[in-house]
Amino acid sequence: MRIRDIGEFGLIDRMARSLPPPGEGVVVGIGDDVAVLRSSDRYILATCDIQVEGVHFLKDKITPYQLGRKVVAINVSDIAAMGGIPRYLLVSLVLPKETEVEFVDGLYEGMREECSRWGAEIVGGNMAHSPDGIIVDLFLLGEVEPERLLRRAGAQVGDRVLVTGTLGDSAAGLALLLRPETVCPEAHHEFVLRRHLTPTPRLAEGRAVACSGLATAMIDVSDGLASDIGHICEMSGVGVRIRADALPISDAARAVAEAIGADLLEWALFGGEDYELLFTAPADRAPELARQVQEETGTPVSIIGEIVPAQEGMALVRADGVARPLRKGGWDHFRE
Amino acid sequence: MRIRDIGEFGLIDRMARSLPPPGEGVVVGIGDDVAVLRSSDRYILATCDIQVEGVHFLKDKITPYQLGRKVVAINVSDIAAMGGIPRYLLVSLVLPKETEVEFVDGLYEGMREECSRWGAEIVGGNMAHSPDGIIVDLFLLGEVEPERLLRRAGAQVGDRVLVTGTLGDSAAGLALLLRPETVCPEAHHEFVLRRHLTPTPRLAEGRAVACSGLATAMIDVSDGLASDIGHICEMSGVGVRIRADALPISDAARAVAEAIGADLLEWALFGGEDYELLFTAPADRAPELARQVQEETGTPVSIIGEIVPAQEGMALVRADGVARPLRKGGWDHFRE
Repeated sequence: MRIRDIGEFGLIDRMARSLPPPGEGVVVGIGDDVAVLRSSDRYILATCDIQVEGVHFLKDKITPYQLGRKVVAINVSDIAAMGGIPRYLLVSLVLPKETEVEFVDGLYEGMREECSRWGAEIVGGNMAHSPDGIIVDLFLLGEVEPERLLRRAGAQVGDRVLVTGTLGDSAAGLALLLRPETVCPEAHHEFVLRRHLTPTPRLAEGRAVACSGLATAMIDVSDGLASDIGHICEMSGVGVRIRADALPISDAARAVAEAIGADLLEWALFGGEDYELLFTAPADRAPELARQVQEETGTPVSIIGEIVPAQEGMALVRADGVARPLRKGGWDHFRE
Repeated sequence: MRIRDIGEFGLIDRMARSLPPPGEGVVVGIGDDVAVLRSSDRYILATCDIQVEGVHFLKDKITPYQLGRKVVAINVSDIAAMGGIPRYLLVSLVLPKETEVEFVDGLYEGMREECSRWGAEIVGGNMAHSPDGIIVDLFLLGEVEPERLLRRAGAQVGDRVLVTGTLGDSAAGLALLLRPETVCPEAHHEFVLRRHLTPTPRLAEGRAVACSGLATAMIDVSDGLASDIGHICEMSGVGVRIRADALPISDAARAVAEAIGADLLEWALFGGEDYELLFTAPADRAPELARQVQEETGTPVSIIGEIVPAQEGMALVRADGVARPLRKGGWDHFRE
């Protein structure tokens, strides 16, 4: 069955029926001009993030279910990076008429599951037809207590730079998708593919960081570590020294890089889509914060560098102790 | 200059710099992971609406500035249809790398102007590159006092159906765009083009209807009168009789239909994109409500039909007094 057979309203009905009953905060969900949400005394967080066929995903390399999970996860990651909690999702779909209805079903199944995992719910959206590829654009609303809000601005000279989990796994997963003939152990293969296709937003970790009151700035690693620490530096008016040998790398990413002959450091610095949290905290509190987040969530936290004055710029200290300028690099949607 | 020359972050900087300073309600605007907004004791309204090149607009038939105004206007119209006020806008842009930066500048100029006209502000968004056409997807947050919220559900048997302004102008404008050789008076030409290219959301009218406390249901005419009254009927569990000779038609639409030899009634019923407000009110209060809205806003309001039991379905009463079934028709994004 193709979406041209059931039409826009048929498709909207189908998706609306597939959702669980709306929660208390939803006055009006899908089926009116806008979603209506009860307000509270918290700050409202609003973000959007998009997946474009042929740019962010290849239709033959990811299932609709995985895509649904991923696009929700990357939006939740943005809310987590402010120390907040995701609440309400609007789904904007642009689809060629020939799209299989099963594709949309799978996509929604993935979105529903990922939402329910993080306590969010789908309350609205729109559908339009596309002359070409599939585009999934999500708008996610969340909330945070004003005193727990963490921004990109706020890092101070002397602060340590911390990161959750491991870096470069998503790039390793993408490399494997594009070179499926690569030989490497099954467990490693699965791990990096999962990290690329269905990343886990660090929501509990973000809340732990925010609730600790110890962090000074936070962002999620979406464009790549170098690019994202660059955003913190720019917004905080500081520079940074990152220690290459402190970057947390998984055994799996290491194995894949070896099998392919890729530069692991490039993946960790510029790969992007790791959706780890990158944050800063005063030097004397950083080890305690790392330990605390790790204990609360089970996710390892590494101290990977320090904040320096802006005039020192961004530097990468290699294992030989020599500091070299760190280019922001990372993913820029309009350059090649 | 093309967007590939300045890159995503260059483009984001450029757009962020082009905005006026954020208002009081904005804790964090553009430049962090999400926008952070102060909350209040009102309901939050959340909507999204999209413009896809080749589907909703043709790049050589609308200027970037007009497109910017239009895409904001159609989202504001959704908020107006709930009786609310627009507040915060997130802009999701998907652009081919070869897009002229001037296109984005013009688009933002239009969005900024339309926002400032309705008291809304741009607080965030994202940009991605597209293998093909341009897509502008807006996410608009608004608010409404709980007691003033108007929904699609709520119309009662016996209620009258009211509509602001005139119907079919946008279809007439589109017809002229596609047949530029059509000869008709300049003033009519300009009027229907403006109605199609830069529609005016009926925000003041929506507030007047909501504040009157007299209306039972409301929607905006985006897909076409027949389709949109169909949404009210479906959500309210009722039927409707629309009187063809009561439909408000502008002299301009009439002149264009004559010049082209088009069916004016088809335009008024199924044309869509008029962004008028369609609402219902008890029979004994409807004339008073129509008068009140017209006096407050200067926009004419017409009584065009009545709500009947669901089993009578949707009917159009022609000038000859004969009622015929009214097909929902209107614009369905996935059918032809």
